[in-house]
Amino acid sequence: MKIINHDIDREKRCGVPEIIYGEGKTEADLSVVVKEFLSSSGRAIITRVDEEKAKRIIEATNKKKYIINHNRKGRVLVIKKKERKTKNIGVVGILCAGTSDTKIAEEARAIAEELGCKVLREYDVGIAGIHRVFPAIQRLKKARAYIVAAGMEGALPSVVAGLVKAPVIAVPTSVGYGTSEKGKTALNTMLNSCTPLAVVNIDNGYGAAIIAYKILSTQKTKK
Amino acid sequence: MKIINHDIDREKRCGVPEIIYGEGKTEADLSVVVKEFLSSSGRAIITRVDEEKAKRIIEATNKKKYIINHNRKGRVLVIKKKERKTKNIGVVGILCAGTSDTKIAEEARAIAEELGCKVLREYDVGIAGIHRVFPAIQRLKKARAYIVAAGMEGALPSVVAGLVKAPVIAVPTSVGYGTSEKGKTALNTMLNSCTPLAVVNIDNGYGAAIIAYKILSTQKTKK
Amino acid sequence: MKIINHDIDREKRCGVPEIIYGEGKTEADLSVVVKEFLSSSGRAIITRVDEEKAKRIIEATNKKKYIINHNRKGRVLVIKKKERKTKNIGVVGILCAGTSDTKIAEEARAIAEELGCKVLREYDVGIAGIHRVFPAIQRLKKARAYIVAAGMEGALPSVVAGLVKAPVIAVPTSVGYGTSEKGKTALNTMLNSCTPLAVVNIDNGYGAAIIAYKILSTQKTKK
Amino acid sequence: MKIINHDIDREKRCGVPEIIYGEGKTEADLSVVVKEFLSSSGRAIITRVDEEKAKRIIEATNKKKYIINHNRKGRVLVIKKKERKTKNIGVVGILCAGTSDTKIAEEARAIAEELGCKVLREYDVGIAGIHRVFPAIQRLKKARAYIVAAGMEGALPSVVAGLVKAPVIAVPTSVGYGTSEKGKTALNTMLNSCTPLAVVNIDNGYGAAIIAYKILSTQKTKK
Amino acid sequence: MKIINHDIDREKRCGVPEIIYGEGKTEADLSVVVKEFLSSSGRAIITRVDEEKAKRIIEATNKKKYIINHNRKGRVLVIKKKERKTKNIGVVGILCAGTSDTKIAEEARAIAEELGCKVLREYDVGIAGIHRVFPAIQRLKKARAYIVAAGMEGALPSVVAGLVKAPVIAVPTSVGYGTSEKGKTALNTMLNSCTPLAVVNIDNGYGAAIIAYKILSTQKTKK
Amino acid sequence: MKIINHDIDREKRCGVPEIIYGEGKTEADLSVVVKEFLSSSGRAIITRVDEEKAKRIIEATNKKKYIINHNRKGRVLVIKKKERKTKNIGVVGILCAGTSDTKIAEEARAIAEELGCKVLREYDVGIAGIHRVFPAIQRLKKARAYIVAAGMEGALPSVVAGLVKAPVIAVPTSVGYGTSEKGKTALNTMLNSCTPLAVVNIDNGYGAAIIAYKILSTQKTKK
Amino acid sequence: MKIINHDIDREKRCGVPEIIYGEGKTEADLSVVVKEFLSSSGRAIITRVDEEKAKRIIEATNKKKYIINHNRKGRVLVIKKKERKTKNIGVVGILCAGTSDTKIAEEARAIAEELGCKVLREYDVGIAGIHRVFPAIQRLKKARAYIVAAGMEGALPSVVAGLVKAPVIAVPTSVGYGTSEKGKTALNTMLNSCTPLAVVNIDNGYGAAIIAYKILSTQKTKK
Amino acid sequence: MKIINHDIDREKRCGVPEIIYGEGKTEADLSVVVKEFLSSSGRAIITRVDEEKAKRIIEATNKKKYIINHNRKGRVLVIKKKERKTKNIGVVGILCAGTSDTKIAEEARAIAEELGCKVLREYDVGIAGIHRVFPAIQRLKKARAYIVAAGMEGALPSVVAGLVKAPVIAVPTSVGYGTSEKGKTALNTMLNSCTPLAVVNIDNGYGAAIIAYKILSTQKTKK
Repeated sequence: MKIINHDIDREKRCGVPEIIYGEGKTEADLSVVVKEFLSSSGRAIITRVDEEKAKRIIEATNKKKYIINHNRKGRVLVIKKKERKTKNIGVVGILCAGTSDTKIAEEARAIAEELGCKVLREYDVGIAGIHRVFPAIQRLKKARAYIVAAGMEGALPSVVAGLVKAPVIAVPTSVGYGTSEKGKTALNTMLNSCTPLAVVNIDNGYGAAIIAYKILSTQKTKK
Repeated sequence: MKIINHDIDREKRCGVPEIIYGEGKTEADLSVVVKEFLSSSGRAIITRVDEEKAKRIIEATNKKKYIINHNRKGRVLVIKKKERKTKNIGVVGILCAGTSDTKIAEEARAIAEELGCKVLREYDVGIAGIHRVFPAIQRLKKARAYIVAAGMEGALPSVVAGLVKAPVIAVPTSVGYGTSEKGKTALNTMLNSCTPLAVVNIDNGYGAAIIAYKILSTQKTKK
Repeated sequence: MKIINHDIDREKRCGVPEIIYGEGKTEADLSVVVKEFLSSSGRAIITRVDEEKAKRIIEATNKKKYIINHNRKGRVLVIKKKERKTKNIGVVGILCAGTSDTKIAEEARAIAEELGCKVLREYDVGIAGIHRVFPAIQRLKKARAYIVAAGMEGALPSVVAGLVKAPVIAVPTSVGYGTSEKGKTALNTMLNSCTPLAVVNIDNGYGAAIIAYKILSTQKTKK
Repeated sequence: MKIINHDIDREKRCGVPEIIYGEGKTEADLSVVVKEFLSSSGRAIITRVDEEKAKRIIEATNKKKYIINHNRKGRVLVIKKKERKTKNIGVVGILCAGTSDTKIAEEARAIAEELGCKVLREYDVGIAGIHRVFPAIQRLKKARAYIVAAGMEGALPSVVAGLVKAPVIAVPTSVGYGTSEKGKTALNTMLNSCTPLAVVNIDNGYGAAIIAYKILSTQKTKK
Repeated sequence: MKIINHDIDREKRCGVPEIIYGEGKTEADLSVVVKEFLSSSGRAIITRVDEEKAKRIIEATNKKKYIINHNRKGRVLVIKKKERKTKNIGVVGILCAGTSDTKIAEEARAIAEELGCKVLREYDVGIAGIHRVFPAIQRLKKARAYIVAAGMEGALPSVVAGLVKAPVIAVPTSVGYGTSEKGKTALNTMLNSCTPLAVVNIDNGYGAAIIAYKILSTQKTKK
Repeated sequence: MKIINHDIDREKRCGVPEIIYGEGKTEADLSVVVKEFLSSSGRAIITRVDEEKAKRIIEATNKKKYIINHNRKGRVLVIKKKERKTKNIGVVGILCAGTSDTKIAEEARAIAEELGCKVLREYDVGIAGIHRVFPAIQRLKKARAYIVAAGMEGALPSVVAGLVKAPVIAVPTSVGYGTSEKGKTALNTMLNSCTPLAVVNIDNGYGAAIIAYKILSTQKTKK
Repeated sequence: MKIINHDIDREKRCGVPEIIYGEGKTEADLSVVVKEFLSSSGRAIITRVDEEKAKRIIEATNKKKYIINHNRKGRVLVIKKKERKTKNIGVVGILCAGTSDTKIAEEARAIAEELGCKVLREYDVGIAGIHRVFPAIQRLKKARAYIVAAGMEGALPSVVAGLVKAPVIAVPTSVGYGTSEKGKTALNTMLNSCTPLAVVNIDNGYGAAIIAYKILSTQKTKK
Repeated sequence: MKIINHDIDREKRCGVPEIIYGEGKTEADLSVVVKEFLSSSGRAIITRVDEEKAKRIIEATNKKKYIINHNRKGRVLVIKKKERKTKNIGVVGILCAGTSDTKIAEEARAIAEELGCKVLREYDVGIAGIHRVFPAIQRLKKARAYIVAAGMEGALPSVVAGLVKAPVIAVPTSVGYGTSEKGKTALNTMLNSCTPLAVVNIDNGYGAAIIAYKILSTQKTKK
């Protein structure tokens, strides 16, 4: 009896493909799913895949047939047919507050790039040294959407949104201790920003990238 | 000694004007601020203004010189110079789950329209009767961004985001009782959606409209 | 001095036998309790038993005398005398939203089947791809009670309850991260559903099965 | 433009009619909705309607044409065509722990009776005087489902479920102070019961009645 | 420079000796403190000491000079001079709801006995089988104070306090999962009991024993 | 049909009478219950009764037949037959930290005195001026149990328990603002005290008095 | 019997006088306490006193003998003997983020000034318009301690502390809605600031002033 | 592309250097950052560095050129050029309640000393034995700021602040179990202290030291 129901046409319906969430899946589980995705759509995107599992999946992949992009810090692995093309849909600026937030920023970057965004980055621009924010913003001025990740007090996205015109997607990270409450403080800071922010779940770099992609691709399809 | 510091050029810097938050301000307070805004930018937009105060501010306004738009349900009052023009920047679809969410949906609508969005609405399409969602989505297909408001279990935005390509801005409302925890349950539902959503604070119709506006106007400026 | 007080006649009093909760018990502890249950009622049902312990208990069991049913995914082990009969009391439909919820759905299935329910399953029918829900519901139409497990935003049970006549038992799972708060978000979503649900504790597949069993067996005894 | 989407065939689809939630609606709002319901289905059921509004709606109703049932304590008002019949579907037992829980128990009773259940009640049987529970259970022995409401420590449903065979629906009430946290303590007690309970939202007497009705009516339709 | 300030005369001042909290202390740390206590008061009482550490401390102890009492389940180790006497101060009844609560009940027992209480126990008398409570209470009727430990829904202390005259000390345990919230649900249940309970911190068997001791010893000193 | 179940022999069973909780009951409700209690046991004790209602109940009472004790600050009203005697069972010391905690301390006093305790009081001895605590403790040295009420940081009971031999019952009060969280901070402080405390619910002066009474009366009955 | 224990020499011991918390006290209560304070120390400082009560206390005060300082916005009333002198102890800078935070900032100012601080203020410098912060900081450069009040996301104190050398005392305010959770979000933001802040309770302008005073006066006494 | 933005002139701007947070960084990461800091400012201060990593970093350091200060208990490692001088800026008193709080107190000490404070310590002076506090305070009377660390009920800072004139910085620690909620109870106790405290995040010894340093150095620069 077949009891599993896949969502095979999500890309057609929503514009974004289904993505494989690697956490808690064994290497064997992942191998099966990767095969299914490669045969049905020619591409498999895995998030939250630890280094060891990624390495073994890569080893088992036919490099002649497939391109492999592995973002170690962001824990994202992309495997796709060589003939698959990605069209450029515009620039996304990604900022983060502290060095520990980089991991989430890179998850966002890996997904956004795979979906066709050009990504410009400015990391470690936390508000403790506010002067660093202004030139960073200046260097990102071509961005048509911003992704800003921050843990602890989570105030960077508010500051950025007070300085730019494009929409700002805020990603709280679980960085911090004590009353940071594993990211809930940063999340609430972002939800209460005076300048409205588009907020996603804690550590959800993937979600931020999808929203950035939707913003840019809606713009593309508009013409 | 002058100790108050206004933010007079926010519109130029961020693309959106500063908006007056009416809650907790007296009619006298509001009258002063409205005058300041009218003289500096030719427009005053007040949110969360109760009917009685709105009425008196309207009565005191010179109708020959100013256009007055009052959205009673959404508690938004706009007063602006007759010569001010609003350019059309595209379509926003607004949906809400229950009749009690309408108030927040209308706040979003009033702000979005004032900023130049054309708004299409579908109200009372909660997931208890899921069949109502499909034709509603169909009627809104021109939207380049969606605002979806829901209280209680807050699941409507997830369902909508699984059916459309444009970005979905989710607004949790404080509708419900017991474990709805004044909107926190709906908020968390939206942050945990399988299909990523751009989430704003509870009852923050204003914030959702600003983000929708930014998405659409970034698109405009792109060409 | 005897200081432990067993509840030996619960099955007679409440219609359901006492079940052994395996978590935190050593293999030695479990072996003793299993023996007690087999000698008093001819059946031992253990939940939350990990694979290694289950294996050793099975090895030590006399296969000539006892039937062994081990649901690995659901971590349920049933050992019972060969002569014990289970009467069929009707159909229960079990659905779950994501692949990670399967574990809990299977716990429910193992218990429900052991108590005499015929179980029909539809897994991985999350609301991100809402179209999958309708045919799944159709295939389960003989069910006289539904068990629906979901983590993250936990909205599937609401959707199902809006489409069927029989009572829906909702099981929140601890699947998710950040604001999923280990299942509390899914739990609250279910408690706030517009269409009323019979909710159980987070990850409590066992409890859902017992309620389904009580619903069906009450129906049975009614004639 | 018509922007409101009613769910007119819920009764046919799910077996239970849509019910009007009276809280926060004005008398005028309610009058309009009541008329709509009477003309479409011949019956309007309003919950959480305060005495004053109920009185005025009753005064405006044609008593020759309509039957009026008003449960003051439970704040439920039913208006329906005289020719409408309710078929008897079986017995529901309703218990509550303290006198302050009666309000919620009566909400459940009013709905359950309107949907065709015969209701037997035992109130004020809190566990501080545990001896009262046993004869009460005895007097309710014909029930094929139980609704048990309790605030404060919320332990009554657990005790009842340890004594009966039929499913127990537990309703936490917001009765208490301090750490009762407006019903959350009672809710959690019920979710953690050793004997599994079908739990609904805090103060949700209406939801408990719907689930009891579904349990009984599924049995009816089964033959 | 001496910077540590010991509380050497607590027993004289408050009637109870300072007790060594073993958690997080190394075996070396404990050895030093045990020596200090033995030389100053002739007795060392350690709580939360794991089996391995306890074993090594015992091995290093001079059995000719000292009595050693080790409650493995309760993780309490007492070492004291052979000439030390404990006077009998009366009976304490200890009950617990489930087998997993035994650990905390035994911590209470070990401390209470060391301080001179005679302890009578009744374990595994949870309210799911309420009939077991009555004979257990009967067997404990000489108790002048009760300690009742329970996790999950935590309702046993309420039931006991409704049946006895002596004060009941309630100990919530961290037993459970999901919404048990590591004992907070049991704690809140106990604080909201209709029959007032003397509540201590989660898993605080030691604290319960101290309060029981104070109740009994105050009685003693009264004559 | 009689559906209310009174607990008429609680005093005989548990040593303490059932007490009427006045909050949320109308004057009419209270009058009925008072009459029932006077006729069955010759005494009615009402807590949380506001001044206006108390006044009217007193006016309606036959002063020739009944003694009336009304503690306005503590909101407790006692009405009892003149022939009823209260035997003296010993001394309870009551302390509170701030002037706002007096209300709860007086509730405890009124109940304790009615049950036969002699009460000695020391109010406004908060730890901000720690020197005040020592002479206060000295003046209360005859107490065989202490009730200590405190809001805000709630640290007074810990300090007292470090200075006396008799058991200390700690009552957190809802006094404070911001992070006092209506008494939860004081409650948690008390549960985490280094010197164990017998803690009751927030603002539960009544519960503290019952426990003090049980401690003293158990001592009495012991001889 | 005298049961109230005043703390008459707190000023001598801790350097700061006891201050009267006006909330919840009646005008009559306040009059008595004011008189006591005037006769013992020649000064009464009341916080959280509403306008109506303040007015009546002022009317009843002998203006020939006493100086009256009433900060309406900050709800602080000071009455003191004309001969009382306040020595200048240095400059405190007070900033706040939004107009709604002014109330708390003014409470801090009134207390700080009464204790001898010279106060410089910069209000409405929220981080949505970050450019406003720099000149404000510049104008306050003589401050030897800063008090920074902010509600909603509460990020202003972090930004200020990244720009100045003197210690920053952060006051979260209860301004905001939804997930601002009445100031808890701002509080947590401040506790998690990358640049360490001295944080006080929500809306505790008074506490911030006391700490600023202690910092400055310790400096004074140092020479 | 350079995407990391360091804050190289924080010491000049805010008076305190940037400090390296060691938690979660690998030994390799730390080595790189230490080198950068040594070459730019001649000093590297690392907090939360575990013993093993510290040991290896020390081994790799040129002892002829650098001074190494390693506070094992406080997990702080300082490496700096021999020619660097630290000027004495005054006395800080550090107290802590229990032996488990020492770790955090030592973190504060290591940082404060490195920044030029002379530190006097009094450890293990918890309020269970309140008499120990008075002589400890006496021995610290030269302090111009106090740092007081406490876990569990967290009441020590309140008691200290009621006895001294200099500002008290309160550090809640995560010591405790059950309702200590990993330090949140101690934190809330401190925020609600009757005598105002300057509170920092849970376990934030580093932050407390920075604030103490700022208080003392502002005083220094004042002359």
